[in-house]
Parts: sequence; C-alpha cells; structure tokens
Amino acid sequence: MVWLVSAGPGDPELLTLKAARLLAQADVVLFDDLASGPVLDHAGPQAQLIAVGKRAGRPSAKQDAVNALILSHARAGQQVVRLKSGDSGIFGRLEEEIQALTRAGIPFQIVPGVTSASAAAAAMGMPLTRRLTARRVQFVTGADVTGGLPGDINWAALADPAVTTVVFMGQRSFPALARGLIAHGLPPDTPALLAEAVGHPGQRMLPGTVAGLAAMLERDGPASVPGLILYGPLALPGGNGSGTPATP
Amino acid sequence: MVWLVSAGPGDPELLTLKAARLLAQADVVLFDDLASGPVLDHAGPQAQLIAVGKRAGRPSAKQDAVNALILSHARAGQQVVRLKSGDSGIFGRLEEEIQALTRAGIPFQIVPGVTSASAAAAAMGMPLTRRLTARRVQFVTGADVTGGLPGDINWAALADPAVTTVVFMGQRSFPALARGLIAHGLPPDTPALLAEAVGHPGQRMLPGTVAGLAAMLERDGPASVPGLILYGPLALPGGNGSGTPATP
Ligand SMILES: C[S@@+](CC[C@H](N)C(=O)[O-])C[C@H]1O[C@@H](n2cnc3c(N)ncnc32)[C@H](O)[C@@H]1O
Ligand SMILES: C[S@@+](CC[C@H](N)C(=O)[O-])C[C@H]1O[C@@H](n2cnc3c(N)ncnc32)[C@H](O)[C@@H]1O
Repeated sequence: MVWLVSAGPGDPELLTLKAARLLAQADVVLFDDLASGPVLDHAGPQAQLIAVGKRAGRPSAKQDAVNALILSHARAGQQVVRLKSGDSGIFGRLEEEIQALTRAGIPFQIVPGVTSASAAAAAMGMPLTRRLTARRVQFVTGADVTGGLPGDINWAALADPAVTTVVFMGQRSFPALARGLIAHGLPPDTPALLAEAVGHPGQRMLPGTVAGLAAMLERDGPASVPGLILYGPLALPGGNGSGTPATP
Repeated sequence: MVWLVSAGPGDPELLTLKAARLLAQADVVLFDDLASGPVLDHAGPQAQLIAVGKRAGRPSAKQDAVNALILSHARAGQQVVRLKSGDSGIFGRLEEEIQALTRAGIPFQIVPGVTSASAAAAAMGMPLTRRLTARRVQFVTGADVTGGLPGDINWAALADPAVTTVVFMGQRSFPALARGLIAHGLPPDTPALLAEAVGHPGQRMLPGTVAGLAAMLERDGPASVPGLILYGPLALPGGNGSGTPATP
C-alpha cells in the first residue's frame, strides 16, 4: 500500500492528523521541494527521507524516475509515503503516480490536505468565496508544461469580475496574463494579492490591484519563493471599497 | 481572540493539528451541523459545545444570532473556537463573522482546512486537476440565498469541457443546471460524480455522466445527506475512455 499524502502549505501545524500519523509510521518518505522543512519532523526515526523535487540536488528527478522509486520501495514491502505540497490533487502531478501504481497493481490511498489557496486567504484574514459578489472560486495555472502561459485560456471564465481566481505558478507569466484579462474586460483596478511562501518563515502578503501587481512583477521579476496570485472582488481587510459587497 | 477554525470534511483524522490543538484548549466551541460528530471529540472536557447550525434543534439560528453569540463569549474573555465544515473560507459565510468581529474590535485568526472538494476527489482516487485536460478547477454553488439556481451563472465558464467543476449545495438544482450546461454545449456524456457524505459513515460515491446524474436526481430527489457534484474530464478510476487524456 502506497500513501499519497498531502502536506499542506508548509506550516507543520497545518498537516492533518492522518498525514502526521502516516509520516510517523512510514519506512520511506518521498517528498517534493515544497513538502519539505519542518513537516518532515513528523517522520519517525526509522524513516528514510528521500527528496525527489527538482531542487533536490540531483540532476532533475523526472516524473518517470519518481514513479520508479515509488514502485521499487513499495515492492520491497516498505510502508511508503509519497508527500506532496498543499492538497496533492491540485496541480500536483498526482495522476501520473496514480497511473503508475494502477499499472503495477499496487493499491494506494490519497490523503487530502489544505491547499495553499485556502491557506493564503486565511493568512490574509479573508474568505475565498463571498455570498453576493464571489459565488465562484477557480484555481488556474500560470504556466503549462513549457513554463509559459497556457495557450488554451478561457478568457470569459478568467476575466469574470465576480469570481475569486487563484493563480498557481503564475508570478513569471502574470504580466502577460493581466494584459489578456484587461483586454477581455477585467477592470485594471480589480483587487489582487500576491501571497508568497504562505505558512513558511518568509511569508509575505502584498495586496494591490491586478494592474499594480503586474507592473511590480514586470519590473522586479518573480521572487524565488513559491507564490500565489489571487484576484477578484477580494475582501481584503481594511478594504478599499471594492472589497465590500455592491448589493446588500 | 476568536479562532475561526476549519473542521475538514468530517473524518476526524482530516482535522489539522492546529484545529485539534485549538479544540483541546477551547472554553467554548460554536459549531455548524456539518462540523459536528466525531471531530468534536477533540474538544477538551472543559469546553462548552454549542450547536449553531440550522438543524441545531433551536428555531433556525440566524447569522446575526451566531455573530452575537461569538461576540458575547469573546467579550466574556473565553477562548472561543468557531468551527466550520471543510475549509471555512469556501461557501462558509465566513465574511459575515469576520465583519462582526472587525466591527467589534475583536482580533481573530482563520485556520484553513481540507475542503470537502479535495476530500471527495481523494476518496474517489483521482486528482482535481489534470496536466493536459483539466488545467482549471472551479468551485460553484448550486443554490443562492433563495435556495434556487443562482441567476448570474457564467455559462462559458461552467460549460467549459476542459475544467473540473465542483458544485456545492447542488443536488436539488442539478437537473436545471445540467439542462443549462448541455444547452451551452457541454456534452451530456461528460463524466460526473455525486459524492455524498464524504468522510462520514454513510459515504457514497456515484460516478456517471452529467445527463445520467441529472436524470437520477430528477427522479429520486436529493438525499438528505451533504453531497458534492463533480463534472468535467474526471480521471474516474477504471475510466470509460473520457477519463484518459485526449492528447499525450
Ligand atoms: C506544483 S504546485 C502544487 C500546489 C499544491 N498542490 C497546493 O494545493 O497548494 C506549486 C505551486 O503552488 C503554489 N504554492 C504551493 N505552496 C505554496 C505556499 N506555501 N505559498 C504560496 N504558494 C504556494 C505556488 O504557486 C507553487 O508554484
Ligand atoms: C455551506 S457549504 C460548506 C462547504 C465547506 N466549507 C467545504 O469547504 O467543504 C456546505 C456544502 O458543502 C458540501 N459538503 C460539505 N461537507 C461535505 C461532505 N463531507 N461530503 C459531501 N459534501 C460536503 C455540500 O455540498 C454541502 O451542502
């Protein structure tokens, strides 16, 4: 049995009780870059900890190599925890590992977790949905396999001003995304938030507007820490007017 | 200080370590219907447990009454935990309580949690996003304040076949929603899943298609348990073809 376990955003207290128990029992923990740090302190002394992320120091661990590692440890009869950041089902390449396990006939169980999107909103003191002004919330990726803005963007969905949008892996492409959004009718002064390293020691919250954040990222370039960009009718604390419902 | 705490989907092991610690320390826990059951066993013996949900037995606890309760316990100097199901920032009326606390000058902190959307996908053994076929995931509500289908639906966003959509509070209105989706071009045989009581003893997973699920709900009416409807290019296990990526 392989456990595909969600690690939450990074704060070791935002691990689920189930994830903590499975880490404590694991023989081997295969973890991503973003699922490292103090969350790994929950692993027991017997556990072999193996970094499989891109920054793991080894020549870029490809997905196939990760799959092969999971299978070989599972076949050796070990209790395997595959630890992924946030909620493992959201932009986590979970499907590739599920398919490898299914093909190999190895049973697995997925343990859901706290996505960094939920953690970012909570850290900012605001909800992701709003009863009258944001009845939809959507998570999108700012980068496809090539690292650039995906070619198949549904602009009617993304430029909708009545939705909270959370952009994952989007700091680099946000200036281009923002240009497209504004061209498709999203007001440039739509509230926006850059949430960096949520739940990590360097956590930083930069509220602003879509146009303002795009200009800042264009000028400074993306930071080297993980970050999310939220935009829409955000209920930013001490709001600027656009943060309060238009209708009672 | 008031703690606005997310309880996760219902399985007491899907509580975060932080939520469990805060429950153990609380003087008073104000909980919703869906944030009850075994998760409350984490509260300490000193804790006063107060049900504030609609089914709490008292004449429908209105939001104002809930706000007043939170404030009065906080002003009495008690350690207050306000416990909400799933992730508190998602369709949880969190904003109303934040506003009441802000107006009263009472500091608060939000503890994010595992949304039932993540738990439903995990229980089904599938991811919410897919690298090539579902680069967006959206959470929508099937009911507005009147209980009916919201009037302001963005059909281009919701009928997009390349997105995983999760409908909250949607069992009653799904037949109407499905008619609209199909009228706006969503194929009737788009994979769909009804996930009932995820993480609760009565958990039930009903995979099918958008048209099939709508017909079933039209015929049988919604069950009395909480449920989510997921649709899109779902990677349903043992998939039916539509569950596998169209392009390599
Ligand atoms: C491969 S995705 C994994 C997302 C993860 N499964 C989740 O649910 O949060 C990695 C991206 O998630 C976002 N991310 C993950 N953890 C984060 C954190 N602690 N703070 C800010 N952004 C984070 C960043 O956009 C990062 O580039
Ligand atoms: C008021 S909303 C709260 C959602 C919650 N904040 C979350 O993130 O899951 C309640 C709706 O969430 C969904 N829901 C909550 N818990 C669920 C569970 N354990 N299983 C299935 N659906 C659930 C149902 O659609 C229910 O009507």
